[in-house]
Amino acid sequence: MTFAAQVLTLYPEMFPGPLGHSLAGRALAEGRWSLDAIQIRDFATDRHRSVDDTPAGGGAGMVLRADVLASAVDHALERSPDAPIIAMTPRGVPLTQQRVRQLAAGPGVTILCGRFEGFDQRLFEARPIEEISIGDYVLSGGETGALVLLDACVRLLPDVMGASSSGDEESFENGLLEYPHYTRPQIWEGRAIPEVLRSGDHAKIRAWREAQAAEITRLRRPDLWERHGGTPDRSPSGARRKT
Amino acid sequence: MTFAAQVLTLYPEMFPGPLGHSLAGRALAEGRWSLDAIQIRDFATDRHRSVDDTPAGGGAGMVLRADVLASAVDHALERSPDAPIIAMTPRGVPLTQQRVRQLAAGPGVTILCGRFEGFDQRLFEARPIEEISIGDYVLSGGETGALVLLDACVRLLPDVMGASSSGDEESFENGLLEYPHYTRPQIWEGRAIPEVLRSGDHAKIRAWREAQAAEITRLRRPDLWERHGGTPDRSPSGARRKT
Repeated sequence: MTFAAQVLTLYPEMFPGPLGHSLAGRALAEGRWSLDAIQIRDFATDRHRSVDDTPAGGGAGMVLRADVLASAVDHALERSPDAPIIAMTPRGVPLTQQRVRQLAAGPGVTILCGRFEGFDQRLFEARPIEEISIGDYVLSGGETGALVLLDACVRLLPDVMGASSSGDEESFENGLLEYPHYTRPQIWEGRAIPEVLRSGDHAKIRAWREAQAAEITRLRRPDLWERHGGTPDRSPSGARRKT
Repeated sequence: MTFAAQVLTLYPEMFPGPLGHSLAGRALAEGRWSLDAIQIRDFATDRHRSVDDTPAGGGAGMVLRADVLASAVDHALERSPDAPIIAMTPRGVPLTQQRVRQLAAGPGVTILCGRFEGFDQRLFEARPIEEISIGDYVLSGGETGALVLLDACVRLLPDVMGASSSGDEESFENGLLEYPHYTRPQIWEGRAIPEVLRSGDHAKIRAWREAQAAEITRLRRPDLWERHGGTPDRSPSGARRKT
């Protein structure tokens, strides 16, 4: 089964963009996933092909029309009825690796890219659309968010990453940030690779890596650490104490 | 002053990619910002031009070498000594709109894109590199993250968005998600634009929008809502109560 991605956008020329290269690009060429970028403007019905209009109640910018966007969504739904429809918007639920795993295991995804001030809210009441945010910052449109979401999904498809990297030990897969990595040269600018990694003692190496992952998560991401079940560190010397 | 972006990557062909179109593309063509994608492999010193090696202590995948990456960083530092150096990595500090604003107001940014299992940790001890994450999910490399970071910065540069959209009322700018938007048609599939937005009463419209922004933030993002100073809603009927 091919993972089928559809992107509804005012800028279809942005796709596949970076996903035409490297792992995702090779997988696309090999038919492990497909990508259709659909021009939203093709669903406009007036002679100016308008997709947006001024905000009701006043204010800056333009709002994407519910009627035009719904036609585009209906078209995508007909072509790919089982794929979830996701709108990239800062008002959405934050994207997680868990949601990425679910999407990658499914038939594909239809992604709706916003522009201007956003979508007419009635679109979300009238169609089964999931609003997702890739982070707490504002982009010029949903397109770069769509590229991020697709990149995250595609790398998890069977045979895309290859056997060399299972992904199981990566950041977020176990609720923690990943432990630090080292490679040759053994000594660089006077800095040596930690002794334990050269010990050949696999149990000790595993324990060291687990402790490092816990420590970096606790220090950098107390939010993840608490969700993981760790206790928040409130002591003033906390930042220097080993767990 | 032109905002100067440098990207250190194994895939320079991914740039400008989507940033060559729309607002960012026009601003790039007009010289409001510049973008140099620098091939990390050009800083390898052996005849195979290796940039990576196996992880010390064992494990899957490959690790980017500190010595090669430091040479690439030093080259970028020479060209753009005042630009912060940011590595895109899931172990980094989460990107915020506040950090985006700071970066956009500065001379530019040098972005280091990871691949494989990541960077040799000694790189971060030996060079002034800020580790940033765009979200809690795993990408095939730092490139799509770099595109997101640049998109977020470029739209804030002077004269890029135009006067129509100041950005002041957008999600995150005041610590809340944005209120919902509506536009014509007045009635669509039996759904009307909320009455208040057609009232012409600007004070009432502003109050309604503020209440909506608070409500959507409280329901969807209790984390943002608490940081904003709102009280978390723990009552079982909370989801239906108006603030």
